[in-house]
Amino acid sequence: ADSPYVAQMKGAILSIAPNVNVVDVTHSIGAQDVLHGAFVLADSAFHFPPGSIHVAVVDPGVGTQRAIVAALIDGHWFVAPDNGLLTGVAQGREVAEFRRVENREFWRKSVSNTFHGRDIMCPVAAHLSLGIDPAEIGPSHSQLMQLPWPTSQRRGHIITGEVVLVDSFGNLITNILRSDLDPDWNVVDCHVDCGDITVQSICETYGRRAAGETVALFGSSDRLEIAAVSGNAAASLGIERGAEVVVRPHGG
Amino acid sequence: ADSPYVAQMKGAILSIAPNVNVVDVTHSIGAQDVLHGAFVLADSAFHFPPGSIHVAVVDPGVGTQRAIVAALIDGHWFVAPDNGLLTGVAQGREVAEFRRVENREFWRKSVSNTFHGRDIMCPVAAHLSLGIDPAEIGPSHSQLMQLPWPTSQRRGHIITGEVVLVDSFGNLITNILRSDLDPDWNVVDCHVDCGDITVQSICETYGRRAAGETVALFGSSDRLEIAAVSGNAAASLGIERGAEVVVRPHGG
Amino acid sequence: ADSPYVAQMKGAILSIAPNVNVVDVTHSIGAQDVLHGAFVLADSAFHFPPGSIHVAVVDPGVGTQRAIVAALIDGHWFVAPDNGLLTGVAQGREVAEFRRVENREFWRKSVSNTFHGRDIMCPVAAHLSLGIDPAEIGPSHSQLMQLPWPTSQRRGHIITGEVVLVDSFGNLITNILRSDLDPDWNVVDCHVDCGDITVQSICETYGRRAAGETVALFGSSDRLEIAAVSGNAAASLGIERGAEVVVRPHGG
Repeated sequence: ADSPYVAQMKGAILSIAPNVNVVDVTHSIGAQDVLHGAFVLADSAFHFPPGSIHVAVVDPGVGTQRAIVAALIDGHWFVAPDNGLLTGVAQGREVAEFRRVENREFWRKSVSNTFHGRDIMCPVAAHLSLGIDPAEIGPSHSQLMQLPWPTSQRRGHIITGEVVLVDSFGNLITNILRSDLDPDWNVVDCHVDCGDITVQSICETYGRRAAGETVALFGSSDRLEIAAVSGNAAASLGIERGAEVVVRPHGG
Repeated sequence: ADSPYVAQMKGAILSIAPNVNVVDVTHSIGAQDVLHGAFVLADSAFHFPPGSIHVAVVDPGVGTQRAIVAALIDGHWFVAPDNGLLTGVAQGREVAEFRRVENREFWRKSVSNTFHGRDIMCPVAAHLSLGIDPAEIGPSHSQLMQLPWPTSQRRGHIITGEVVLVDSFGNLITNILRSDLDPDWNVVDCHVDCGDITVQSICETYGRRAAGETVALFGSSDRLEIAAVSGNAAASLGIERGAEVVVRPHGG
Repeated sequence: ADSPYVAQMKGAILSIAPNVNVVDVTHSIGAQDVLHGAFVLADSAFHFPPGSIHVAVVDPGVGTQRAIVAALIDGHWFVAPDNGLLTGVAQGREVAEFRRVENREFWRKSVSNTFHGRDIMCPVAAHLSLGIDPAEIGPSHSQLMQLPWPTSQRRGHIITGEVVLVDSFGNLITNILRSDLDPDWNVVDCHVDCGDITVQSICETYGRRAAGETVALFGSSDRLEIAAVSGNAAASLGIERGAEVVVRPHGG
């Protein structure tokens, strides 16, 4: 953020579509961390109204043969490199329209080898906001490049997943969803194992527990998360993204 | 900011009020640091035009019985948890209208236990921007929860206060206001004590002093601050929020 | 960003021009680092559409006699302290109109000694957006204060420059432009020296090289940059802003 890149992208959009409302999602995705970007995009995009156009750029392959795509998913347009960044938003959703971004008419006149976010994706997104026919962007694209998406596994009464995001509070966000548990399990009696610790119960919210206590709960995106009340679970437990997490009913 | 939460809040607002102008104030308040949030809110909100709607979320008690409130103060609406976060904006100002946010009609259909900023406060603020009758939000609320607000103390010719904010330059911002001093005191002759140091004079601005010098001055919100010219006073002096600060006229 | 200053500036603008679109460029310029600000401003401003008004504040001399200026350059207005911050945007461009910001009619009623960004620059920029006659801002200013601007030097077949920006990826951005090289040089055969390392060739983009490899290429602003593929060159090479960089054709 101490660099001109974000501003250049905003300028590229506003130069074409001066009245569009440009909204910052985040500029803090780890460098080259496509999976991190895919998770944050998946957990934020559909909170915006249908008709939103999302430009997502985590693009270590810029300048290579990887395609740039525009995809219409659940009424939202996504313009991004086809490198897996759309894996999360495409999970369980149909891609209604899917284009390879190839028509240079909508690109910056001069295209660099290292910043297609500014030179291709933002200009195309800006033109989409002006109502061009999506078919003009480029030919249909058949297959979205997808990253191996970490999903939880169920074996008997044991659900195994992993930490997929450490959030800005240090909460350990997992890929275990509320719907992964049997409806007849009493979450209060479920154990959660992660690293060296076992949390004896899944609770409803942080606010009712003592500061410092490690708790497990289903968070605001229905993902199981492990948190330290008024603290930073990632720091205090020394647990990072990718750590295994196991849920099992008491006695399970 | 590497998390989807800020974007989810913006999306929640824009889904209800697509034409509203969402302005970022800050997303860098310390986790669970209600007092920090209260100070930054108090020092920024009234610089916006009357009619602004401020959503403030530092909410360690989310999911407990703490109320969520909407308060009209000096022509500005504030939507926040009733946990002290509005202590600063309410200092010395009358709350013209004060509602408990209870009418679920204006909330997200599905309300999580851990993110009322997204599910309750932003939707209510968005509806306020559309001109709903504030009485519809919920019943009148009688008493704002207020944090003990650090105010300076005067004993004879000695004013005692404390550092209430370390700003992004490392300046030590205090709760001693220009108006706390006797009008007939010559600020040039006032001593300022903080930690192990004594600054011999209160000056007008940083720019006239040598780099590295520690100075005391009344800053842009009329608060006494201690700064290192072209440097970081907090780092170089090892002083943190809460440190005592004393002002006394020369010989006082 | 954990301080109220950015919000105060936005509020100052919106209080005068409530319908203006305020766009964040960056709030991460190093404290007092005018040269850093000048580079980021130079590399971002002209990506916005003509008619944009840029407020740039890196202002260690606030409260001293340094002027505040409004300059019209290539159809863009810049409002900034006259301390060198506009050096980059003025490089090779004509200043069409150049005013000293002196007419207090367009300032905040109460002007602090330490925050002219909020009290003078933002209000003047807001008034400019409303279409006031620029001549009303203040008298003509004759001479822009310019910092020594690091430019590359050519001696025979050797071009010497320096690192002028370490970007958020750790890429080392230099002041050597593609146009500084002879058109008949084969960039693939150019050596680049920086610190203890020599890169044997200038390549087209990061994406085609192995992770960890140190590469040199012309980036998205046509500046030579040294990068570590999928890594952080500044960290891994221990090179900072100001480091000398030499380009020479093979055998040159």
